[in-house]
Amino acid sequence: MPNPTAAMLVIGDEILSGRTRDANMYHLANELTKIGIDLKEVRVVSDDKDAIVSAIQSLKQEFDSVFTSGGIGPTHDDITADCVAQAFGVSIDVRQDAYDVMAAHYIAQGSEFTETRMRMARIPDTATLIENPVSVAPGFKIENVHVMAGVPKIFEAMVASVLPTLIGGAPLKSQTYRIERGEGIVAAPLRTLAEKYTDLSIGSYPFQKDGAFGTNIVIRGADETGVSAAIAELMAIFPNNGV
Amino acid sequence: MPNPTAAMLVIGDEILSGRTRDANMYHLANELTKIGIDLKEVRVVSDDKDAIVSAIQSLKQEFDSVFTSGGIGPTHDDITADCVAQAFGVSIDVRQDAYDVMAAHYIAQGSEFTETRMRMARIPDTATLIENPVSVAPGFKIENVHVMAGVPKIFEAMVASVLPTLIGGAPLKSQTYRIERGEGIVAAPLRTLAEKYTDLSIGSYPFQKDGAFGTNIVIRGADETGVSAAIAELMAIFPNNGV
Repeated sequence: MPNPTAAMLVIGDEILSGRTRDANMYHLANELTKIGIDLKEVRVVSDDKDAIVSAIQSLKQEFDSVFTSGGIGPTHDDITADCVAQAFGVSIDVRQDAYDVMAAHYIAQGSEFTETRMRMARIPDTATLIENPVSVAPGFKIENVHVMAGVPKIFEAMVASVLPTLIGGAPLKSQTYRIERGEGIVAAPLRTLAEKYTDLSIGSYPFQKDGAFGTNIVIRGADETGVSAAIAELMAIFPNNGV
Repeated sequence: MPNPTAAMLVIGDEILSGRTRDANMYHLANELTKIGIDLKEVRVVSDDKDAIVSAIQSLKQEFDSVFTSGGIGPTHDDITADCVAQAFGVSIDVRQDAYDVMAAHYIAQGSEFTETRMRMARIPDTATLIENPVSVAPGFKIENVHVMAGVPKIFEAMVASVLPTLIGGAPLKSQTYRIERGEGIVAAPLRTLAEKYTDLSIGSYPFQKDGAFGTNIVIRGADETGVSAAIAELMAIFPNNGV
């Protein structure tokens, strides 16, 4: 049985303008890989209503689950929750469960639960909350879409809240072999190997270090024995890392 | 006149599995912003023919220009050039211009121009070459799509080859003000500012440092005078960085 599939939607002008380097994609990719969910596509769009709504509508249909990052804070450019509500055709307003958890927090903190902060208690109808142990204002899940914050620390905490609720697949076994030769040398034997081990994924990742070219070969598959056999063949062709 | 728009397509399993952290998106975003081209969307897809072809077909229609990264090396999983040819409905084969530049390089280097390396001289019909000053095997441009390598050093060199050929727009002026208060405090006055300066983009980027929340406000616009006026108002509301 193939693994469940996932897509990620990163929302935010700051990534597309180059102001901020995205970190959430890398984190989510690693967490999903560990539990055997295949991240198949990532999209990054700006804080633009039409772009967000149409991306959500297309990704939620195409993949088993969708994870969004960004645009759920209190400011005027945080429009993700409204866009998700629109994409699912449900209404959105301040919701009692989100309000309660936030009010309790601000009272305990001795700070004010301002109208602005109340914006973060706006949750689409039928959605369930995703816990935010960092700054309380929750994320939410509606059908197969998980809506989370963009600040990496909060995003990571929300991912940790969500992971135990996901049904994973067979985590891929993976082994890497480093060859100190360029891809031009490595490619032909690699192709033969790929034709023999059709149930393995054989990736070739070139690098350049101190002016010399090298290639990392990553062999992945559900069956560890197969992965080990293919790596052993590769090591026989390029002994001593091809030096 | 609005700025020209662009999209980026990152191709590679290694990004989606979390093995590699993408660096090219951040680089391209910065370079395009400098010359007034608005990067509107980024997609990351795996080394999968259907996913690549359909992403190219959709992005090339929707945006003024498209930049791809990855999948043009010599190995069996490098299928980008073939996918681009298919997306444009043109044929693809080893092309004399690409062959010549590569053959000259390998002869000068005293290394062999293997059949495997020759794969990198496969260029779609009607495409023009993009120079690769790092490792010679060229990228290419077909209509509004620029196809470049995934290795960051080579990607950056190809972007440098391409940039002078692009027609940019008005580069945005941008000013940032750091406020040592959380978004919950900053959001209300910010909304008033955004309603007053409708031709500026006012972004709010929360951060957390040593347990305290803060917000960076980035104000952007084509008109530097307007940006300065809005920043001055913000500084009057939160003097001394809101401390």
